[in-house]
Amino acid sequence: MRENMIGRANVEDTPELQEYYRQLAQHEAGALWTVANKIEPWFPKSSSQATLWRYRDLRELVLRSVDLVTPEQAGRRVVMLTNPGRRDVSASVGWLYSGLQVMRPGEEASAHCHSASALRFIMEGAGAYTVVDGHKMTLNARDFVLTPNGTWHQHGVEESGEWCVWQDGLDIPLVNALEANFYAVHPDLVQKPTFPVDDSTLTFGGPGLMPVNFKWDKPYSPLFKYQWDATYEALQNYARVSDGSPYDGIIQQFVNPVTGGPVMPTMGASMQMLRPGEHTRAHRHTGSVMYQVAKGSGYSIVGGKRLDWQEKDIFCVPSWEVHEHANGSASEDACLFSFNDFPVMRALGLYREEAWDDNGGHQRVTAQQ
Amino acid sequence: MRENMIGRANVEDTPELQEYYRQLAQHEAGALWTVANKIEPWFPKSSSQATLWRYRDLRELVLRSVDLVTPEQAGRRVVMLTNPGRRDVSASVGWLYSGLQVMRPGEEASAHCHSASALRFIMEGAGAYTVVDGHKMTLNARDFVLTPNGTWHQHGVEESGEWCVWQDGLDIPLVNALEANFYAVHPDLVQKPTFPVDDSTLTFGGPGLMPVNFKWDKPYSPLFKYQWDATYEALQNYARVSDGSPYDGIIQQFVNPVTGGPVMPTMGASMQMLRPGEHTRAHRHTGSVMYQVAKGSGYSIVGGKRLDWQEKDIFCVPSWEVHEHANGSASEDACLFSFNDFPVMRALGLYREEAWDDNGGHQRVTAQQ
Amino acid sequence: MRENMIGRANVEDTPELQEYYRQLAQHEAGALWTVANKIEPWFPKSSSQATLWRYRDLRELVLRSVDLVTPEQAGRRVVMLTNPGRRDVSASVGWLYSGLQVMRPGEEASAHCHSASALRFIMEGAGAYTVVDGHKMTLNARDFVLTPNGTWHQHGVEESGEWCVWQDGLDIPLVNALEANFYAVHPDLVQKPTFPVDDSTLTFGGPGLMPVNFKWDKPYSPLFKYQWDATYEALQNYARVSDGSPYDGIIQQFVNPVTGGPVMPTMGASMQMLRPGEHTRAHRHTGSVMYQVAKGSGYSIVGGKRLDWQEKDIFCVPSWEVHEHANGSASEDACLFSFNDFPVMRALGLYREEAWDDNGGHQRVTAQQ
Amino acid sequence: MRENMIGRANVEDTPELQEYYRQLAQHEAGALWTVANKIEPWFPKSSSQATLWRYRDLRELVLRSVDLVTPEQAGRRVVMLTNPGRRDVSASVGWLYSGLQVMRPGEEASAHCHSASALRFIMEGAGAYTVVDGHKMTLNARDFVLTPNGTWHQHGVEESGEWCVWQDGLDIPLVNALEANFYAVHPDLVQKPTFPVDDSTLTFGGPGLMPVNFKWDKPYSPLFKYQWDATYEALQNYARVSDGSPYDGIIQQFVNPVTGGPVMPTMGASMQMLRPGEHTRAHRHTGSVMYQVAKGSGYSIVGGKRLDWQEKDIFCVPSWEVHEHANGSASEDACLFSFNDFPVMRALGLYREEAWDDNGGHQRVTAQQ
Repeated sequence: MRENMIGRANVEDTPELQEYYRQLAQHEAGALWTVANKIEPWFPKSSSQATLWRYRDLRELVLRSVDLVTPEQAGRRVVMLTNPGRRDVSASVGWLYSGLQVMRPGEEASAHCHSASALRFIMEGAGAYTVVDGHKMTLNARDFVLTPNGTWHQHGVEESGEWCVWQDGLDIPLVNALEANFYAVHPDLVQKPTFPVDDSTLTFGGPGLMPVNFKWDKPYSPLFKYQWDATYEALQNYARVSDGSPYDGIIQQFVNPVTGGPVMPTMGASMQMLRPGEHTRAHRHTGSVMYQVAKGSGYSIVGGKRLDWQEKDIFCVPSWEVHEHANGSASEDACLFSFNDFPVMRALGLYREEAWDDNGGHQRVTAQQ
Repeated sequence: MRENMIGRANVEDTPELQEYYRQLAQHEAGALWTVANKIEPWFPKSSSQATLWRYRDLRELVLRSVDLVTPEQAGRRVVMLTNPGRRDVSASVGWLYSGLQVMRPGEEASAHCHSASALRFIMEGAGAYTVVDGHKMTLNARDFVLTPNGTWHQHGVEESGEWCVWQDGLDIPLVNALEANFYAVHPDLVQKPTFPVDDSTLTFGGPGLMPVNFKWDKPYSPLFKYQWDATYEALQNYARVSDGSPYDGIIQQFVNPVTGGPVMPTMGASMQMLRPGEHTRAHRHTGSVMYQVAKGSGYSIVGGKRLDWQEKDIFCVPSWEVHEHANGSASEDACLFSFNDFPVMRALGLYREEAWDDNGGHQRVTAQQ
Repeated sequence: MRENMIGRANVEDTPELQEYYRQLAQHEAGALWTVANKIEPWFPKSSSQATLWRYRDLRELVLRSVDLVTPEQAGRRVVMLTNPGRRDVSASVGWLYSGLQVMRPGEEASAHCHSASALRFIMEGAGAYTVVDGHKMTLNARDFVLTPNGTWHQHGVEESGEWCVWQDGLDIPLVNALEANFYAVHPDLVQKPTFPVDDSTLTFGGPGLMPVNFKWDKPYSPLFKYQWDATYEALQNYARVSDGSPYDGIIQQFVNPVTGGPVMPTMGASMQMLRPGEHTRAHRHTGSVMYQVAKGSGYSIVGGKRLDWQEKDIFCVPSWEVHEHANGSASEDACLFSFNDFPVMRALGLYREEAWDDNGGHQRVTAQQ
Repeated sequence: MRENMIGRANVEDTPELQEYYRQLAQHEAGALWTVANKIEPWFPKSSSQATLWRYRDLRELVLRSVDLVTPEQAGRRVVMLTNPGRRDVSASVGWLYSGLQVMRPGEEASAHCHSASALRFIMEGAGAYTVVDGHKMTLNARDFVLTPNGTWHQHGVEESGEWCVWQDGLDIPLVNALEANFYAVHPDLVQKPTFPVDDSTLTFGGPGLMPVNFKWDKPYSPLFKYQWDATYEALQNYARVSDGSPYDGIIQQFVNPVTGGPVMPTMGASMQMLRPGEHTRAHRHTGSVMYQVAKGSGYSIVGGKRLDWQEKDIFCVPSWEVHEHANGSASEDACLFSFNDFPVMRALGLYREEAWDDNGGHQRVTAQQ
């Protein structure tokens, strides 16, 4: 790791120094210059790899878990998505975890709470619901729901429903790394809803409206569910009056209506629409992102690697990797749901973003998955 | 103003003191104890009177102004509503001004800007529009639109429209009292829209959604128009899951989506729905409120005075006056639009609210208008 | 008030219009165009006058009040400073009140609380103290102390002390105008200190330090007293590394250490030092200011009027009046304590400031007091 | 990791499941229930160990580095303190790095900037200085200085000074883990001071004072240096009016005077004083802390391990480890400087704190270092 440049470490190993290092080690110490260039890199190089998880590969495996384990044994029947570079921390990209969970009609998991924050994006089925601190939310395909840090929550599928599959997203790896994860099982095992069903969206669903004298001192959104229909309509409306972002097309962030900020302190989420034929320009930023294809098909190029995706496929963009997105259809729009750790980056003053202007703003493809 | 109580001024006039007061006056001074009890009241007693302005009385007068003055002569053809106790400052209640403005198809006022903040609530007609800093908004009956402090704005009615009447609400009296009002005429007299029509609602109209990387450093909402249809639907949704406020029924505040706070730093606004037969409990608070009946009929009791109102009637509640509202219909809901100076009260630490529990929470009627 | 300019009202009185106005008045209404130019001025013109109160004129009158009234009769023995343009609201400038209070050794006023916020600046004497919500503060000459909105407070002078005179500053006129003033006498008439004497300065007196886990949800500073010695030293230190402000010299604001913002939501305060021979450039801003000369002598020019001041003199600058300050000594510095309503202006989005560049940045003197 | 409890994973390995896991792995996937109990622990168990670094052990080794490497070769001559459980990330505790740096009179390191934030606590010597974005700060023993994320900074010792040793504290491991670290060498290699020496403390050194109209949009404190003399005096003052914290004695946090919050978004710092004979009660919290003994001697018990410390010794408290501190002297006070990652914990909603009430609030000692 030696670098021949002023301001960088460039020390040759000598027997004398090795003896010195040995003595330092006896006192739980070391010489900074032996690692300085490594721990002070010129720019971030993520340990995560750009990865695509195809739903056609995983669906059957996810459904098979129903036969293999009961919810009681497994806690939750989840196939987790493990990034090749992050298997040690069970992360899908960076410090974000994601998995695919399946539930059958009539099943309901026990209620628990933890310091990790969670979100779900519904992929298929009918009759799914989530209860968060007494608020029961009914869920349809492509709905997005929160179960923030410290809330009692449980998932289930109504007796009258169908097999349901959804994507879970959590900051478990981050909260573990920060040595701050607590876990508790609900004293009654299952909490009863104490509010009218879907009160969250019915209370906060008006654009630019909020109940008078509403008090909220939690660091996350009191709106727990964001419905696909309203979201997709909002994107179409926005597309009528804006060109959106050169890097992301027509994109809106899910926000906490009380603050206009991210839905939770550790994770943000967005929905974006690539118009027919749209191919965005490349850029890169700190922070990690997990995408799910909510609608349509196309491809993304991440760090030079082309990932061809279809509806319900999942892929990731590691921190500081250059990326761009393309809608594969000339007639249909394509929509990407995504969640990220940008709120962490911003809260800590570490968010940075940069356009990639080489080659007309588009990368050369060097690999494919 | 003498009061015989410890901690209050209780000084008898004597010739010696009168000579003393005369000497003080020579030096632009006075004795506090001669006014102390007056300027330190036990609780606020508003100089405004509870007042009802009936639209059936005013409509013809408003329309007649079209024949009496041109927009060029008058600046704007506005019949202002002057509270009997506040004629000296041209206020409708407290430090809030309100007036009824009329415009004919094809008319467009010149653009100007001022330190006073303004809002409009559309009462009748078709084809009205407002342009705010290049954003053109089309307006239908019961829509609510902002023209905040410092924005260039102008109003008009399309050639293809109808005679339009709306209610203006401004903080002109407050900003004048604070000696901070500036006024300017647009250099081009009329500003051209520079954004797509209605871009504000199409950009910020999704519940819990906001454009990614949207930057906004103004102290007011970037959402300038709040549409009646969406607002009324939100109230109905909210009524399905909440009992609302005991004092106001089903009430939602119009908010700045970027902050969750009031639409402007000096004025807030709300829409509330009184369910069929609903009669709210009485309470009082600091801050002044102007109401317009958006839908239905009923009455309010303000400081013991009963005000019977119908659609498009306007009435006010002065600061710290006890008030309650009643829907006069057993089958239809009634809706009240209102604007207020609560943001001022809250920013300055002066907001205070109190339930009125006497007589089962309802006042005895002692007067009527 | 007619103005012959597009965008301004320019309507001639006619019999027909006068009849129309009469009809409007019957319905508590009026025509905006009859007052529009008056209530929408091009820029603010304060109703307050630049005024100087000389301590040599007032001191004897203030002391004489001791013989004329008892604290029990008067509540407080205060000579209030009434601006010639604001006698109707008992204000010294704009919406700010100020007065000079005297107390003899052994006197202690009863404790009360009110929605108005108050501050004191000690002028002479020894042994003065103030108790705020159980915190007792000893006070020396030129110390500055807060008694914020809603706090129980009382003033006194120790038996062992001397006759004390201080300047009171309050926002009473503002809070009355906003119809939000409440008043209460302490149930025990006099509150007992419940914290160690001077705990406020001893707790928050370290630069850049704050007790760990200190919780504070009040909108005002928990540091109630700002001592002259530390303040003067801070100005001298600041002068060693900064040229300060071209309009105010070496100036520091008293701040709430918890927020870095103003000490109270409605009033701010500053101390500034004019270096020997310094004559600042002229500027103007919205918001009103009361000054007291803490040290030295010199003059200020306010709206063209020259005010020659000495130590303990008091003067005001009305909103939007051009002003500049000059130290009259070539060898000694001069210090001005001031308080203002800038927090109101800023909270409401109404603060505006402008350099006065004519005539080399200095006004021509057209009057003198 | 199986747990026989509802809500926890308890799945037995079978050949069928092993085959299933093999298939999942082929698609970069896994079964959550194989790791769920591990990644959702009941409470945090830090990978760091309570560790004490004795200055008498390290001082000679630190000084010897002067003979072994030049600043040009090493970048900086730093002996880093590596926690036995965190050698892989070069951390001293949790995600915090710390090291001891030595410089000789006349040496000056080249200027650089990085996304990691840094702080220094001066241990011995004279003539040390740091330059941060053009602000040069002179440093004496026990002074505390910031070099925040993104600032150009360099360290040196005046020709007229003495050998200097200080403790560096950085969030390098955290910023690397978050894949957000950027590094740059100053284009001129060494930056020239562009402000008067020590302007930061001379500008912001007044308690409760701040320059009028000071603008600051950075997320860290504009006060870069906190001086020992003023800090120690503040602790003594605070001790006169407060019992402080049961867990930490007389403790004050170094704060950003503009916000009252922590000095940097990722690291906070405090100074605490244990009064003669004081032995604090035990508690635990999320977040990691590095301590240096600024004055006196005593011991701390961390997770049952007793660490006996003297002046200039350094020790750490890992996340959620129970800890308590004892002053070993019955006549002298003892002071601990510390820095931590609490701002990270708080920004992300992960801070949690708990008193340890067993055994009268004191741990039993089970180990010693």
